[in-house]
Amino acid sequence: MTPGVGPRAATKLLERFGSAENVFLARRTELESLRLRPDTIASILKKEFHENAIREFEKVKELGGDVLVLDDGAYPNLLREIADPPIVLYVRGSWRECLEAPCIGVVGSRRSSTYGENASQMLARDLAQKGIVIVSGFARGIDTAAHRGALSINGKTVAVLGTGLDSVYPKENSKLAAEILESGGAIVSQFPLATPPLKENFPYRNRIISGLSLGVLIVEASERSGSLITARLATEQNREVFAVPGNITSRNSFGTNFLIKSGAKLVQQWQDVVTELPAEISAKILPPEIEKSSKRFSQTELAPADITDQERKLWSLLSSDASTHIDDLIEASGFSVGEVVTALLGLEIREAIRALPGKHYARKI
Amino acid sequence: MTPGVGPRAATKLLERFGSAENVFLARRTELESLRLRPDTIASILKKEFHENAIREFEKVKELGGDVLVLDDGAYPNLLREIADPPIVLYVRGSWRECLEAPCIGVVGSRRSSTYGENASQMLARDLAQKGIVIVSGFARGIDTAAHRGALSINGKTVAVLGTGLDSVYPKENSKLAAEILESGGAIVSQFPLATPPLKENFPYRNRIISGLSLGVLIVEASERSGSLITARLATEQNREVFAVPGNITSRNSFGTNFLIKSGAKLVQQWQDVVTELPAEISAKILPPEIEKSSKRFSQTELAPADITDQERKLWSLLSSDASTHIDDLIEASGFSVGEVVTALLGLEIREAIRALPGKHYARKI
Repeated sequence: MTPGVGPRAATKLLERFGSAENVFLARRTELESLRLRPDTIASILKKEFHENAIREFEKVKELGGDVLVLDDGAYPNLLREIADPPIVLYVRGSWRECLEAPCIGVVGSRRSSTYGENASQMLARDLAQKGIVIVSGFARGIDTAAHRGALSINGKTVAVLGTGLDSVYPKENSKLAAEILESGGAIVSQFPLATPPLKENFPYRNRIISGLSLGVLIVEASERSGSLITARLATEQNREVFAVPGNITSRNSFGTNFLIKSGAKLVQQWQDVVTELPAEISAKILPPEIEKSSKRFSQTELAPADITDQERKLWSLLSSDASTHIDDLIEASGFSVGEVVTALLGLEIREAIRALPGKHYARKI
Repeated sequence: MTPGVGPRAATKLLERFGSAENVFLARRTELESLRLRPDTIASILKKEFHENAIREFEKVKELGGDVLVLDDGAYPNLLREIADPPIVLYVRGSWRECLEAPCIGVVGSRRSSTYGENASQMLARDLAQKGIVIVSGFARGIDTAAHRGALSINGKTVAVLGTGLDSVYPKENSKLAAEILESGGAIVSQFPLATPPLKENFPYRNRIISGLSLGVLIVEASERSGSLITARLATEQNREVFAVPGNITSRNSFGTNFLIKSGAKLVQQWQDVVTELPAEISAKILPPEIEKSSKRFSQTELAPADITDQERKLWSLLSSDASTHIDDLIEASGFSVGEVVTALLGLEIREAIRALPGKHYARKI
């Protein structure tokens, strides 16, 4: 709230003085040594702006919220890692619990199709069911569907606003905001209280969505959609980018199909997101079910149900400890190339085996 | 047509005797030295089967067709390369012209959706327009739409039958068969005349579709679709596999989305296929338009139309001869990270620039 102090000056000041408090205790000569602009130095030395900040902080507290500062232990670690993290983060609700859990951003067009809204709601619901916090932008369309999907099973969801923490935009989402807070979710913004919905602020909002998350799932995006920018920013932040495919005849899926073509992970179901998360997280969510059951069953009985005789035969020839080349499977089974390929594909679709590079195959654990 | 002589025995015989003709001139002792089964040797020595073959060949000629043999110079080279090429190939129509041109298989479910049929027809039409021959399986649904798409602009298309060359299955496609031949297309089968539509023959038909083609485009495929097997066989044959994405809520797109997840190239439009073809083919179809026009325009005027000022600025900073790192673009432009990312994305979507590994960018030629 100090005129002349943007992210760069703020970073410089925090590095020099260690904390925001110390910045305001600094002498003019100390500030001058940092080669700041004269009006910036004047702003810092004026108590008036400092008092504005104190009043702002009191108002946030009245709302039941808090303000996290970059040099603060409570500031989310993942967000701190990005190239230009916001200096302050306004938070409301159960932000601490939410931001400690694995977060996934689920975003997309405001002008969404019914398909996109259904896909957003379904995937957000399924991910929330597995204990993943759904971070989204509180916008119409895909974002609202994502928040609603998490709420539908009493899951946690974080709304990142492009407005001040005390504003609700779009207006029709005021009930949604209340529900998010009631369900143990959180509302987050980098903008001062009473900031109206300004077009230029939304890209910054998107950067926080990906900054707080391990990955971002784009559900629907047209060619000119801001969601494509979110996806690109997520890549710059070294976050996983996921996208839901859609009909090539739908404008709403142009962007997501384009993202997949450019390397985003295609998502058909929640598992496609979870398998890409860090191993310590995905292992908790995806328990090694076959391994567990292997204590009770013999190798042969382990074969998945509802498979053909040829699939069963090939399954019996495969191991989970070492991979087998397709030629060896053809030789050992006595089946034709076509039969072996067909059976392996059947097993792969049932997630019973894994295709490895160079035509090698192994059982999935 | 000789009982006991399947693909393996036939290959062995052709290798030993050099041509099919010589096989039938071979002596018993020569045949015995190849360790063939006694009844196979008896079949080969019996003139009766040989005469059947001659009658079959005459019937094919009456139909206006021909029979290509694996040891024949006219046999398609790409098909000869696969693991177990059919020994004989029955052909009708302008097969020579078709099989010399670049071929792409376009296939998919028989029980297709309207979306899938439209996508199949549109992509086959656009590819045929560029001189690519559309190879498909003459089945209901996606295959029929693919043939029709090529015919809609008088393009060439090859129907690979799972029946004999003289049968038309499904019956409602008899008009389609005539149109394919009239438009300079071809009809192909590996099965003897009068072979009815047998379920077990269709996987062999699929293998020929991919065997004749540089790549196979799967337009729609459910979880259990034969098209997934075609895709896998195409991979085994070292062919490119392409797939059209679709809504994750559609059963018909489950298989194609799955294929993309497993590495198939996502196709939104015909260019996505052509760019993956061998350079000598794609270069002819995708002329370097920007390079051509560079003789007439200065560097700045070359920038694509309908772009923002920021996009134009970044375009001017990029070169087609060397790549530039995003940090250098941020530095040189004076734009923020977000602005640069947004503008680069805009240029990339317009296919004006190319994103390279490690956050480097270059102009497209």
